[in-house]
Amino acid sequence: MNRYLVISADCHAGLPNVQYRDWLDPDHREAFDEYLRQREAMLELAGRGLLNEEFAEQWEAENEEGLRGGWDAARRDKELDADGVAGEVIFPDADAVTAGASAPFGAGLGATGETDPALLLAGARAHNRWLAELCAQSPERRAGVAIVPILHDVDAAVAEIRRARESGLRGGILIPSMWQPYPPYHDHRYDPVWSVCEELDLPVHVHSGAADRAQYGEHVGMYVAEVRWWSMRPLWFLIWSGAFDRFPGLKFVITECGAFWAADLLWSMDIAYDREHAAKKLGSQLTANMSMRPSEYFDRNCWIGASNTRRRELARRYEIGVGNLMWGNDFPHPEGTWPHTRQWLRDAFHDIPVDETQRMLGLNAAGVYGFDVDKLAPLSGAIGPTPEELGQTGDALGKWRELAAAGRPWRTGIEAMPLPVGQ
Amino acid sequence: MNRYLVISADCHAGLPNVQYRDWLDPDHREAFDEYLRQREAMLELAGRGLLNEEFAEQWEAENEEGLRGGWDAARRDKELDADGVAGEVIFPDADAVTAGASAPFGAGLGATGETDPALLLAGARAHNRWLAELCAQSPERRAGVAIVPILHDVDAAVAEIRRARESGLRGGILIPSMWQPYPPYHDHRYDPVWSVCEELDLPVHVHSGAADRAQYGEHVGMYVAEVRWWSMRPLWFLIWSGAFDRFPGLKFVITECGAFWAADLLWSMDIAYDREHAAKKLGSQLTANMSMRPSEYFDRNCWIGASNTRRRELARRYEIGVGNLMWGNDFPHPEGTWPHTRQWLRDAFHDIPVDETQRMLGLNAAGVYGFDVDKLAPLSGAIGPTPEELGQTGDALGKWRELAAAGRPWRTGIEAMPLPVGQ
Repeated sequence: MNRYLVISADCHAGLPNVQYRDWLDPDHREAFDEYLRQREAMLELAGRGLLNEEFAEQWEAENEEGLRGGWDAARRDKELDADGVAGEVIFPDADAVTAGASAPFGAGLGATGETDPALLLAGARAHNRWLAELCAQSPERRAGVAIVPILHDVDAAVAEIRRARESGLRGGILIPSMWQPYPPYHDHRYDPVWSVCEELDLPVHVHSGAADRAQYGEHVGMYVAEVRWWSMRPLWFLIWSGAFDRFPGLKFVITECGAFWAADLLWSMDIAYDREHAAKKLGSQLTANMSMRPSEYFDRNCWIGASNTRRRELARRYEIGVGNLMWGNDFPHPEGTWPHTRQWLRDAFHDIPVDETQRMLGLNAAGVYGFDVDKLAPLSGAIGPTPEELGQTGDALGKWRELAAAGRPWRTGIEAMPLPVGQ
Repeated sequence: MNRYLVISADCHAGLPNVQYRDWLDPDHREAFDEYLRQREAMLELAGRGLLNEEFAEQWEAENEEGLRGGWDAARRDKELDADGVAGEVIFPDADAVTAGASAPFGAGLGATGETDPALLLAGARAHNRWLAELCAQSPERRAGVAIVPILHDVDAAVAEIRRARESGLRGGILIPSMWQPYPPYHDHRYDPVWSVCEELDLPVHVHSGAADRAQYGEHVGMYVAEVRWWSMRPLWFLIWSGAFDRFPGLKFVITECGAFWAADLLWSMDIAYDREHAAKKLGSQLTANMSMRPSEYFDRNCWIGASNTRRRELARRYEIGVGNLMWGNDFPHPEGTWPHTRQWLRDAFHDIPVDETQRMLGLNAAGVYGFDVDKLAPLSGAIGPTPEELGQTGDALGKWRELAAAGRPWRTGIEAMPLPVGQ
C-alpha cells in the first residue's frame, strides 16, 4: 500500500438549528418555534464564564467556510479530502461551540430520559431524514448514524430503526447513554432494539455528551472529569447482563469517550470474572449470564470510536485491542483534529507499525460499518497520507515487540516491557 | 534501615453485630433490635448466588481465631505482628463476607444519604465510642477513623468530630462517599466539616462500599465494575470547587478504591486546567475557584489508601505520586493480603527501590496520620520485613530510571521509557 485508507469513526453533521423546521412533521413545528426561543437562553452561557468567547469567535472566523461542511455535502467532501479522510461515520450536532447546528429538541448527543419522549422522537426523525439525504451524496464515503430514543417506547424505536436503515442510514444507531429514569440497559425490555440491530448489522452507539449535570452547578471541571464515564457505563451493563450472549452478532461502539480507560476496565472485569483473589467471595450470579470473559465479548462485540487518539492511548493498544480502536477526526468540532489532521496523525502515529496504523485509521471501521474498501480505493489513493508522511520510516515494530508479545498481561502472565506514555 | 516500618492505611474493626447494642444510646436500642431482625434477610443473599458460600465457610474455618482480631485488641496485635504490620488506620465493618461485624444501622462503609439520619448518627457514635476503647489499647499503633454522617446535619457532624477526636480517635473521619439526595460536595454547606478537620488535622476519608445499587438488579458484576468510581468521585468535586484553596491544610484520602485510575485522572484534569486543545473552548469558570493545577492539589492535599497495591499500580507510581500512595493489608477482609502479607509484599515490591518502598509501606501514612515513628521503631524493628525478604536485592533503580525522570509526562514532556505492567 502507498496511502492509508482513513475513515473517521467520529464525524458530526447537523443543519443550522432553524433549518430543521422544514424536516419536522408539521405537528411539531409550533413546539419547535417555542423550543428555539427558549434556546436563546443558551447564549447566556458565555456570560457565565462557561464558554471561552474569544476562542469561539476566532474558531468561527478562521473556519467560516469549512464549518459549512457541517451540513453542505460538497463543502464537507472538500474538508475531508484536505484532511486525508476518505470515509466517515456521522453523528448529530455539528456545532460543538455554541450548539448552533443541533438536532431538534435536544435529541442529539445530550439526549436523556428526562426529555419529552414525543418531541425527542420527532427531533430524531427530522434529523434522520435530513441525514439520509446528506449521505445520499457521496454515499460510498458516508455511514450515517440514526438518532433513536429507545427509552420510552421500544416498539417505536424498532420502527424508526427499520425506517432509518431503509432510508439509507447504514452507520447504526445512537442511543441515550443515560437511561435514567427508565430501567437500566441490563433490562430485557430493550432486547427488541438489540435484536433488530443485530439482524440489520447496525452498530449501537453511545457518544459522549450527557452527564449528571444537575450535580455540578456551574463547575464545568466536574463535567469534564466524569462526562466520559457516563457514556462508557452502558458497556458493563450489557456485558454482565449477557446481552452479547443473547445477541452474539450485536455491535456496540463507545464514541468520543477516549480509549485510555479501556485497558484497566478490561483488566478489572476479567480478573473479577476469573475470580482472582478479591472476587473469590462472589457467588455464582457473577457470571451466570455469560459464557465468555468480559474481554472476549469486548473483542467480538465492542469497539471504541477513539476520536483524537492520544499517545498514552496508543501505548496501551495491545491491552485494549488493536482491532477495537477506531480513530476519528471529530469533524467539525474544535476538540478534534480537523483541519490539521495530517499533523495530528504524524504526532501520534510516527512510531506505530504500519499494519496496526492501517487497522486503527481505517480497516477496523471499514469492517464495523461495511465500507466498500474497493470503492473507496481511488479516493484514499489520492488523498490518504502515506506512512512516510506520518514519519513512519524506521523499524517501528522493534520498539513494541515486548509489549505486543505481552498483549493483555493479566491473561498472558507476561510483564516488564517497554511502554511509552505521553499526552 | 534494616526492617521496614509497615503501616496499613486500610484496616477494619467492628464488634459482632449484636454486641453493639451496649454501645448505643438507650433511646436507640429498640430500633436496633428491629434492625437486627431485618438484617437476617441479608443471609438470603447467599441463596441468590451473590455470595460464594463454599468460600465463606472455608475462610471462616481457616481463620476462626484470627478473625476475632476484628474486635479483640490482643488478638489483633498478634495478627498484625505476624503480618509485619506495626501501625494501622482503622475503618469500620470487620466482616466483609457476611457483614457480621458492621457498625449499627448501616452507618459504616455502605452509608448513604438514604438512611434515616438519626439512626445513622446513633450508629456512628456507638461505633466511635467502642473504637476509641479499642485504640486505647496499643494506642501508638492505632489510628482510628470516626464514622461521621455529614449530609443531614452539619452542626451535629462537627460536634461528633470534636467529640471523637477528644476521645482519642486520631485517624480522621469517614464520610459517605455518595451524597445523594443531599447537595453535592462542592456545596459550601459542608465547609464547617472541612474547616474543623483542617483545624484538628483530621484526614477526611471516603472508602469503597456504597454504589448506585438500585441500578444493578442482581448483577453483581456491575457493582464490581463501578463501585470504586462512586467513592473516588468526591475527589473532583472538592478539587474543582476550590475546597483545597479555602482549606489548604485539609487532607483527603480515598481508601480501598485501588490506585490505577489516578494517573489518568490527574492527566485528564491537568490538561483541562491548562486548556490543552480540547479544553480551549471552556470559559473562565473552569478554573475560577482554583489557584493551582489539579495534580498540585492532589500532591498537597490528597492521598490514596491503595490497600493491596497491584503491580500495574506500582508501575504508575511516578505519575500518581510516590508520596500519595499508602499501602494497606485490609485486615481482616478476605480481599486484602492478611494473613499472607509478607508473600504479597514480595510479589508486588520485589523490584521497587527501597526508599520508595519505605514511603509507600509506611512513611507516607506516618505523615498523614501522625504516627510517632520513634515510638513504633522497637516494634517495626522486630516484626517488619527486610528489603531482602521482599526480594529487593538488585539495583532496582536502574530499571525505573527513565520512568522516574519522566514523572508525570504531561508535565515534563518526557516520554518513551520502560514501564512494567501486570496484575
